[in-house]
Amino acid sequence: MATSKKPDDSQLEQRVNDAQILFDEADDVPVEKKTYEEALGLYLLSPSSALPELARLKVAKENLSRLGFDVTIDKAAANQHMRFAGADEERAKAFSRAAKSDADIVMATRGGYGLSRLLPYIDWKLLEKNPKKYVGYSDFTAFNLALLAKTGMTSFTGPNAVGDFGGNQVDDLIADIFVESMRGELEILSFETKDADDVDAEGILWGGNLALVASLVGTPYLPKIKKGILFLEDVSEHPYRVERLLTQLLHAGILDKQKAIVLGDFNDYKLVKSDNGYDMPEVIRWLRREVKVPVITGLPYGHADMRVTLPIGKKVGVATQDGMAYLLLDKHEHHDHEHGEDCKVCKGDKKKSSKKKHKK
Amino acid sequence: MATSKKPDDSQLEQRVNDAQILFDEADDVPVEKKTYEEALGLYLLSPSSALPELARLKVAKENLSRLGFDVTIDKAAANQHMRFAGADEERAKAFSRAAKSDADIVMATRGGYGLSRLLPYIDWKLLEKNPKKYVGYSDFTAFNLALLAKTGMTSFTGPNAVGDFGGNQVDDLIADIFVESMRGELEILSFETKDADDVDAEGILWGGNLALVASLVGTPYLPKIKKGILFLEDVSEHPYRVERLLTQLLHAGILDKQKAIVLGDFNDYKLVKSDNGYDMPEVIRWLRREVKVPVITGLPYGHADMRVTLPIGKKVGVATQDGMAYLLLDKHEHHDHEHGEDCKVCKGDKKKSSKKKHKK
Repeated sequence: MATSKKPDDSQLEQRVNDAQILFDEADDVPVEKKTYEEALGLYLLSPSSALPELARLKVAKENLSRLGFDVTIDKAAANQHMRFAGADEERAKAFSRAAKSDADIVMATRGGYGLSRLLPYIDWKLLEKNPKKYVGYSDFTAFNLALLAKTGMTSFTGPNAVGDFGGNQVDDLIADIFVESMRGELEILSFETKDADDVDAEGILWGGNLALVASLVGTPYLPKIKKGILFLEDVSEHPYRVERLLTQLLHAGILDKQKAIVLGDFNDYKLVKSDNGYDMPEVIRWLRREVKVPVITGLPYGHADMRVTLPIGKKVGVATQDGMAYLLLDKHEHHDHEHGEDCKVCKGDKKKSSKKKHKK
Repeated sequence: MATSKKPDDSQLEQRVNDAQILFDEADDVPVEKKTYEEALGLYLLSPSSALPELARLKVAKENLSRLGFDVTIDKAAANQHMRFAGADEERAKAFSRAAKSDADIVMATRGGYGLSRLLPYIDWKLLEKNPKKYVGYSDFTAFNLALLAKTGMTSFTGPNAVGDFGGNQVDDLIADIFVESMRGELEILSFETKDADDVDAEGILWGGNLALVASLVGTPYLPKIKKGILFLEDVSEHPYRVERLLTQLLHAGILDKQKAIVLGDFNDYKLVKSDNGYDMPEVIRWLRREVKVPVITGLPYGHADMRVTLPIGKKVGVATQDGMAYLLLDKHEHHDHEHGEDCKVCKGDKKKSSKKKHKK
């Protein structure tokens, strides 16, 4: 692995604090301050592409602080080595530093590309010994799935720090769902679906960016999930490329082994005249002809405006009814833990612990 | 599988013959007529994307006839179903019709996309019982590799009919190498290489379009080749995507099992400012850091102007010396067959049967 030019790492925190906000929309940071009894430690690292602007990292830190997180920035988070946020070795070591930190949560500053080539160099055993809530999306899918394959640990797909919190246009819903998810307060996600097969099932939730999922097929970094709930999204891929990626999962025997396939956003592609009617809806029709597994569309997740936070590697429930789909992310199992007044799962309407009752 | 609108199939040959040449450069067809004692039967089919112009198929037929082939066009070769050259079922059946024909060679009219989804529907046993020389490239890689995986049969990557013979600008070298290859007269291919590790090895030659090779990893359609000579090319993929595809082969344990990796053209991509020095040469340097297998660049194969015809699934030799690389495609094994005056391998300089002597 090559070495990278490092900025003066020990000074990064100061450099972030001093960073000039160079973009107009950051003049104002309207994220409403949340008050919690205790801030959650959140560690930011850069495992993929280099950050374009240090100022965005500063804004992300401020916004995440307002949302109730005590933010630490990895000393190499602003490194650059060609298109990467530092050399492979340094980016891999950042995961070890994060694991050894006292943060509860470890979040990627951004996606891009770089995790695939890092996978053999991450100290998975160290990560297993020091459980954290890892979160990120897009390129981060490679980490989510590799972590599950190598350690069995659940992690999260959800916002990246700079893309989702690095400007003043922070999406309330992205932020709320992320915060609730990190605080263990998110029981259920519901979304409109115009095109869902009937399903009422439970299984391990897994997936992420389709290109990344497919890129792990045949490698030790793809978890072998049977009877799971597989969710997928992708961006800037022509439908024929989406289909080819799905074909790999199909022919590898992965799709038929799932209990449900949940499709998020597939956006930012351009059809051409010679497609002659071929488009994403046709890909979904093809998918339904080829697999017997129920397919649900409409998950607000991916590279469009909205992305929910989802646990990867956790057993969840999925159901559809009357044009709505439901992901039961925290199944309330009364025999699993003691319930007191402060039980976050129990609080509020006790009926919420029944999945059926959620369908309304 | 959906059905497609079919033109009147029985009349296709007549329609091709009647096709108006709508493109300027086809006013003149300067391919020099070759005279052979016997024409080789060549069957054209369309397994991937739909043909844009019937007239190009006519020109391809004429050019291939001049090159010494007796050309038959599959009745569904001009079908169209959305972006595909007909419905999946029809395209799959075309392989069966080709296998049952008396042609020696079966060639794809064009690439594009469509073979991946066809693989489960091709009658591999029928193809095994009726050996032909299959040839095509790009999307055809899926067929080449699946044929090898399902039947053990060697096939060819080389020109497509319409792209390489459907205009008057037929590349002499593409045509000559293709013709020699089909007639069993091609012993050795040599090419300049500016960047080759030392190698002198033998192994099964396999590979093709990198995106297609990677898309078969983990499926029953990827042959399990150890100690092979893997060649790869790709087009319109940013170097980071090329690297991610290579990473899949790397992490799947495929690259390290080969005796040599031979890189063809990687072209038509666009670097961006944030690549910051990252480019294809860097991907090749990364590849060499990650694998111990010798890497050879410069194979004139892919989506650029030149593509050689190569056997996929055949044991060949590879060697480098003094800025040149050599692929010994037809190793002359004197104990393997009787040699008469008409032995195509022996004819001409007898010294050619020695690989060492070819290095000049």
